[in-house]
Amino acid sequence: MQKVLIAGEWRDADAASTFQAHNPNTREALPEVYPVSSWSDCEAAIASAAEASIALRTTSGAEVAAFLEAYADGIEARKDDLVEMAHAETALPVSPRLADGELPRTTGQLRQAAAAARDGSWAMPIIDTATDIRTMFGAIGPVCVFGPNNFPFAFGSISGGDFAAAIAAGNPVIAKANSSHPGTTRIFAEVAKEAADATGMPAGMVQLLYRTSHSDGERLVADERIGAIGYTGARNAGLKLKSAADAAGNPIYLELSSVNPVVILPGALAERGAELVDEFSGSCLMGTGQFCTNPGLVLLLEGDDTNAFINGVVAKFGEAPVGTLLSEGVESSLRTNLGTLISAGAELLVGNTESDDSRYCYANTIVKVSAQQFIDDPETMQTEAFGNSSLFVVASSIEQVKAVIESLEGNLTGCVYSHNGGDDDAAYDAIAPSLRTKVGRLLNDKMPTGVAVSPAMNHGGPFPATGHPGFTAVGIPGAMVRFAALHCYDNIRPHRLPVALQDANPNGTLWRSVDGNWTQADL
Amino acid sequence: MQKVLIAGEWRDADAASTFQAHNPNTREALPEVYPVSSWSDCEAAIASAAEASIALRTTSGAEVAAFLEAYADGIEARKDDLVEMAHAETALPVSPRLADGELPRTTGQLRQAAAAARDGSWAMPIIDTATDIRTMFGAIGPVCVFGPNNFPFAFGSISGGDFAAAIAAGNPVIAKANSSHPGTTRIFAEVAKEAADATGMPAGMVQLLYRTSHSDGERLVADERIGAIGYTGARNAGLKLKSAADAAGNPIYLELSSVNPVVILPGALAERGAELVDEFSGSCLMGTGQFCTNPGLVLLLEGDDTNAFINGVVAKFGEAPVGTLLSEGVESSLRTNLGTLISAGAELLVGNTESDDSRYCYANTIVKVSAQQFIDDPETMQTEAFGNSSLFVVASSIEQVKAVIESLEGNLTGCVYSHNGGDDDAAYDAIAPSLRTKVGRLLNDKMPTGVAVSPAMNHGGPFPATGHPGFTAVGIPGAMVRFAALHCYDNIRPHRLPVALQDANPNGTLWRSVDGNWTQADL
Repeated sequence: MQKVLIAGEWRDADAASTFQAHNPNTREALPEVYPVSSWSDCEAAIASAAEASIALRTTSGAEVAAFLEAYADGIEARKDDLVEMAHAETALPVSPRLADGELPRTTGQLRQAAAAARDGSWAMPIIDTATDIRTMFGAIGPVCVFGPNNFPFAFGSISGGDFAAAIAAGNPVIAKANSSHPGTTRIFAEVAKEAADATGMPAGMVQLLYRTSHSDGERLVADERIGAIGYTGARNAGLKLKSAADAAGNPIYLELSSVNPVVILPGALAERGAELVDEFSGSCLMGTGQFCTNPGLVLLLEGDDTNAFINGVVAKFGEAPVGTLLSEGVESSLRTNLGTLISAGAELLVGNTESDDSRYCYANTIVKVSAQQFIDDPETMQTEAFGNSSLFVVASSIEQVKAVIESLEGNLTGCVYSHNGGDDDAAYDAIAPSLRTKVGRLLNDKMPTGVAVSPAMNHGGPFPATGHPGFTAVGIPGAMVRFAALHCYDNIRPHRLPVALQDANPNGTLWRSVDGNWTQADL
Repeated sequence: MQKVLIAGEWRDADAASTFQAHNPNTREALPEVYPVSSWSDCEAAIASAAEASIALRTTSGAEVAAFLEAYADGIEARKDDLVEMAHAETALPVSPRLADGELPRTTGQLRQAAAAARDGSWAMPIIDTATDIRTMFGAIGPVCVFGPNNFPFAFGSISGGDFAAAIAAGNPVIAKANSSHPGTTRIFAEVAKEAADATGMPAGMVQLLYRTSHSDGERLVADERIGAIGYTGARNAGLKLKSAADAAGNPIYLELSSVNPVVILPGALAERGAELVDEFSGSCLMGTGQFCTNPGLVLLLEGDDTNAFINGVVAKFGEAPVGTLLSEGVESSLRTNLGTLISAGAELLVGNTESDDSRYCYANTIVKVSAQQFIDDPETMQTEAFGNSSLFVVASSIEQVKAVIESLEGNLTGCVYSHNGGDDDAAYDAIAPSLRTKVGRLLNDKMPTGVAVSPAMNHGGPFPATGHPGFTAVGIPGAMVRFAALHCYDNIRPHRLPVALQDANPNGTLWRSVDGNWTQADL
């Protein structure tokens, strides 16, 4: 049985039971056996993280940056192992996806986080010289990260965006592996531990548990020694963790579900309908549709161009190779949720069949409803069928499109395609303000699946897309602020201030707001 | 019966029952009768606020600023009425407290919020030119504000910091009056409505309900049309609202309780013990101790200077006039909570008696425990006896002081007094890092009761002081961000962007982060 990483040591777990990952390409269990930890493992990890948190109070941003950079280097050195293991556990293609896309993205994020930790501007120091009050963001304390199934590297619990942001903000991380790729997470943890040791980080800086019972998970996130939690995954499990963390007053950042509405207005279809068939189909089937920002809901206005678009997509979906799904759970959820939509009256246009029995997969599927059907039962119609499927909603007027939008829950993204010459501008103006309030990222003429690691990215949105619409999970330095508390210093003697708040700018690059003006100068 | 303000009209409430405020100086009911609204009033207010929220999407920051400024002017014009009513309802002194302190603070906050709304820098626009992704904070939607009893103006639900911040961020406000000063809240609402009408704000911009049932309050904060909630008040009621809002995914910002630890190190007492007696007593008895930041917990190291300090404070508390408390509820809670501390073993040094029967009041009280007693039962020892009282904790070593600090819940503030010549520096270094993680605002050589309205202020802190340690309730523009969602624009056509994100800087004063550098320049 694999060991857990607690307090800087690989040790035998106090295992209540065990589990194995499966190869999605064969449906067969992989050989490694992983422990489901008992509470004593959680307790030990929390205690060590709390100690690490104290040690980190006197660790500089530059020292944390050195760790993150050593870790990124170490990941590149173990690249072949990581890619091989992740491919076995997820069936995601070795190239370009894992080796050339997700791995460089992951090391890039870690290095961006390192640069942010070294520079310090992420902490947004504010100095009011009239009152001598000075404030900045500081570390919040031990962070638990629960990573999703669909990005074993870039959102991995010990390698991804939440991890990088939490560490760069000065916090230790307790990672809970995603059960579909524990081996990948283990290799990351090995590399992270080596980098942490080599750069003098405290023992509890990075820790790994593979799995716990649900009740221990809830107890973990509610522990008073925990500073914050990052969770990306299934909605039901996330809401239970949210409830536990909320009751304890521990900030929890969640990414739960999103159907990512795409509105394609008539002028755009008249102008470039065939292109849009390709663009939509490519976005929706990429990664077998297993992206948080997959376009799962398409709003159209009835008409010949819409019919041609639908027919084009249906043909594409029928012809396109059927990708492999990440797990038996994803396959069965997709089947169940498409069933829910069809039982509620959605018309099946293509797919909704078993595809082949030798791997996890399900036919590329499009279902369709009228806008009125959607408006009559928006909760059911927003069932997220995560995977290679989408729901088309056909409206008879732009007012009906707007009514559909207003019936939506919060989403990560919302897109509008419109005529390049302005033919759709009135329709755009009628719907965009409503769509704006429902999504974190609004797009024009672009599918939502690409999530650039940019300081201006918002990978977030209103509940239940996330737990708080003011934060992004992707993008440095924005994502770091989630794992920080506001630390105010009132009349503190100068030599006791953090260097970022002392009169002299510590590195000349640090941006501070002094009396309402941003500056890199000394006071 | 007084009317409620819904949808821009003063209308008869759908009243389930009624209540009256009381004059704390006489314990007698005031003549005005106020409704406890049924759900239909809440529903009407939410519907109108939701409409106002849509109208506000096309209202500029400058237009909102004009409303806030007209409102501030109107408050000054009704100053005498406001001060008279607030004095009758709260017994807070007319001068300097109400007329010369809290009222100018209130209009000052509204004007600062107006300036922030006009300038726009609060929204922290971020532009990444490489990807053409642009992000800023935008209005979150209708905000419910529940104001506390202790600041009828500056934290009032339709006049105070949460109100100013929510409006300036572009949101309508549904105010729930504090039951101890409904008449003051009514006058504010009259002035606010006039200012809103005069400046062309939508009908539901400002609305007022006096009271609801607890269950309707929970339903209100959980409504999907509500954007966020600000609550300052009693912990039990606040936790119920938090639970309801959290389950619905609505951000709720709370200020629940805080004992505001003050550590006075031996060198400071040796150097200036008599001064500190005055400083502490003045801070603790100011406003009859009814401040969120009242120093309710004092940590001392045993010794002669500490004994002299304690004796000095006890003498002061015995001699000082006994202030009037805000309500019968404050009086009975103070009695009950002091009883809890004494039953748990705290030694009564002075006070803990009824003071006079003609008004709401209770004797100035000091109770004392050893650090060991505190550490043995920290939960009970942190019982907040809100009012003119404090708990002294005497430790035998600095390690014990540290252990007490580490047993604390989150607090708004934490102070350390130390020797000016450096005699206490080792002790300071031993405890300050622990105290830092427990409080929002760390002070040196200064009592916590003053809360400057400064952009660098943090009136916040870890749970249960507030609901999230990353936000401040006082200070513009910081407080505004609580009532905003992150709005990202990806590939949006230039003319469809908010002006703050277009290439040209709209006013030349707007600070934007462009490719990681803050600038007021055009792109």
